[in-house]
Amino acid sequence: MLSDIHAIGRDPRTGGYRRFAWSDADMLLREWFTGEAAVRGMEVDEDGNGNQFASWGGAGSEGDRDALLIGSHLDSVPDGGAYDGPLGVVSSFAAVDQLRAEGFVPSRPVVIANFADEEGARFGIACAGSQLVTGALDADEALGLKDRDGQTLAEVMTGRGRDPRTVGRTDLLDRIGTFVELHVEQGRSLVHSGAAVGVATAIWPHGRWRFDFCGEANHAGATPMEDRHDPMQAYAATVLVARRLATEAGARATFGRLEVEPGGTNAIPSRIRAWLDARAADEGQLERLVDALVAEAQDAADADATAVTLTAESVSPAVAFDVPLRDRLATLLDAPVLPTGAGHDAGVLSAHVPTAMLFVRNPTGVSHSPEEFAEDADCRAGVIALAAVVRDLS
Amino acid sequence: MLSDIHAIGRDPRTGGYRRFAWSDADMLLREWFTGEAAVRGMEVDEDGNGNQFASWGGAGSEGDRDALLIGSHLDSVPDGGAYDGPLGVVSSFAAVDQLRAEGFVPSRPVVIANFADEEGARFGIACAGSQLVTGALDADEALGLKDRDGQTLAEVMTGRGRDPRTVGRTDLLDRIGTFVELHVEQGRSLVHSGAAVGVATAIWPHGRWRFDFCGEANHAGATPMEDRHDPMQAYAATVLVARRLATEAGARATFGRLEVEPGGTNAIPSRIRAWLDARAADEGQLERLVDALVAEAQDAADADATAVTLTAESVSPAVAFDVPLRDRLATLLDAPVLPTGAGHDAGVLSAHVPTAMLFVRNPTGVSHSPEEFAEDADCRAGVIALAAVVRDLS
Repeated sequence: MLSDIHAIGRDPRTGGYRRFAWSDADMLLREWFTGEAAVRGMEVDEDGNGNQFASWGGAGSEGDRDALLIGSHLDSVPDGGAYDGPLGVVSSFAAVDQLRAEGFVPSRPVVIANFADEEGARFGIACAGSQLVTGALDADEALGLKDRDGQTLAEVMTGRGRDPRTVGRTDLLDRIGTFVELHVEQGRSLVHSGAAVGVATAIWPHGRWRFDFCGEANHAGATPMEDRHDPMQAYAATVLVARRLATEAGARATFGRLEVEPGGTNAIPSRIRAWLDARAADEGQLERLVDALVAEAQDAADADATAVTLTAESVSPAVAFDVPLRDRLATLLDAPVLPTGAGHDAGVLSAHVPTAMLFVRNPTGVSHSPEEFAEDADCRAGVIALAAVVRDLS
Repeated sequence: MLSDIHAIGRDPRTGGYRRFAWSDADMLLREWFTGEAAVRGMEVDEDGNGNQFASWGGAGSEGDRDALLIGSHLDSVPDGGAYDGPLGVVSSFAAVDQLRAEGFVPSRPVVIANFADEEGARFGIACAGSQLVTGALDADEALGLKDRDGQTLAEVMTGRGRDPRTVGRTDLLDRIGTFVELHVEQGRSLVHSGAAVGVATAIWPHGRWRFDFCGEANHAGATPMEDRHDPMQAYAATVLVARRLATEAGARATFGRLEVEPGGTNAIPSRIRAWLDARAADEGQLERLVDALVAEAQDAADADATAVTLTAESVSPAVAFDVPLRDRLATLLDAPVLPTGAGHDAGVLSAHVPTAMLFVRNPTGVSHSPEEFAEDADCRAGVIALAAVVRDLS
């Protein structure tokens, strides 16, 4: 199934995927999802937020009040890999196929989800589909979000024949009893433990902070080094300190996006906007990391008589997955447990229903990149594990 | 006169100027130049490259074979200041006014120039007008240059009613005997020497190099610090080393422009393109600076198993201004002599005719910025000095 969608939204130059919410690529993936459900005789519902649900048994009836939700998402980051998202959806269909071939009949409805806009690559808010359907994200706020071309989500959805008035919370949470999301691991914990499949314990708290380094634009050729107020120096010092502090704390800190003004080769910059992505095992540790980094950035800026200000753009608390469910799946699968630094729809759902995640081994640990990979044998082990979970829970 | 053009091309948000070649702002400045010449009864010629020349005496006759050229340019960098360029043009008109008021009659034609596209802010090549008219820049190469909107210089000039076929070398060099350009100082040498006006000795050799730092994109949340190949680290180390090396060498090194791929907040970058602007007092020193910086960048990249490559995009040799002319003007004006790290049309012309530059004191040293400034009294001293030079040389 992964090879069926191999070409959709793939940039031939980089080999990476650009499957942004409501793009042509996303629309093709939605049709593919509907088609896979149809050949299995599964009914597909799309909610007002664009989340797709394919049901095996009981859809729409009283019986689906305690459904087992599985699945993941199909969209990608810019230049994303082939597994982040699609592996969970594909494995869900494959698990259903395996269980049916064994003659298994679930005692509760099993529903495969394709959550909309998990990566937030187009409108800037991750897990938009799951946040909207659970009420964690306000519909009006979401509809006003703009993409890089200035189009709002409302305009984009209207252009795809959807009615923006239907965006928002539904009765999904009343209809499901459990959610299990399978995902390629984004790290190498399973390589170290020698297991093909693992069970998630928690999602680390994480956040996004904007640093504004402000100095004084000047001529790059005519201004002596000692007369400069070049904010690039404090930015560079901060990048190096971020690595040191994060390494010491066993945490993560990344500067992956920045804007330089005025941005001329022969101009000392006047301003650098740089976004920090930071994550740590608990909220206190994350706060200490960011505080220490800001103090060091301030010292670096002071040394050049430049300035730095910090804006917290989003900070997400830690998610601890349901402990009885986690222990049950770890025992069932004889699988190691591990935390993750990445956000997921499972993190959003876990605030409302018992939720678990299965991870499939990633030999390089690389994700959000064309290099993202999982061995076929490990993907098959993931399907077998997910089928076992469905059998156990339904 | 500066206040007459105060509003043209000024960005109300930053207070900086965006007077790019052939923009609406540039067209208004060209009309202003023609008008200032007209009220003084000076004839204006525009050559095929867009350079404007206003003549006092002898234009078009045999007598203009040994003209004294003065003037500068009217275009700006992005968010440039009010003085870089315009001060030289305005001071030239004012010097003519003063000499005429004194009843002075020049023995050779005096021509005020407005050279086109000195900053190269639109098409990427500095001193395009003076390079084209002297044959230093090939006409076909220039006509194919594109601005950020993808328009070629040929298309842009046609849109402004100019004939691209007339772009290229003219007989200007046969018609002028000397060029003197007045410019606001881009540094604080004159502040240190306590003089309102100085005379240039040389333009430092300078160049532009592109560094490509290549690593491996990965998930910012899920990738442990020790598993990363993040090229931002080697870039940051290189920025700090560049300052140290340039300071030690009394040279200049600036990173003012960069591009980050993929550029997502939650993605470790795969590639950083960063442009180095470097200048030094002589060519050997500049080469040693860049070589040492590349070696340090390579060491930093090796430490993270990332890679770095260097591309020299342009390297300009040193310009030494005509020594007899420089000494004559320094004695005449009792002015200090100083080198500059900035390129100028005077640097281009000096390869062909005796050329000198006068600098007007800049209290902060800031240029290429809305903060660029010169005191009115110093600007008047510049006009008096330029008038004395014209009187002496014609």
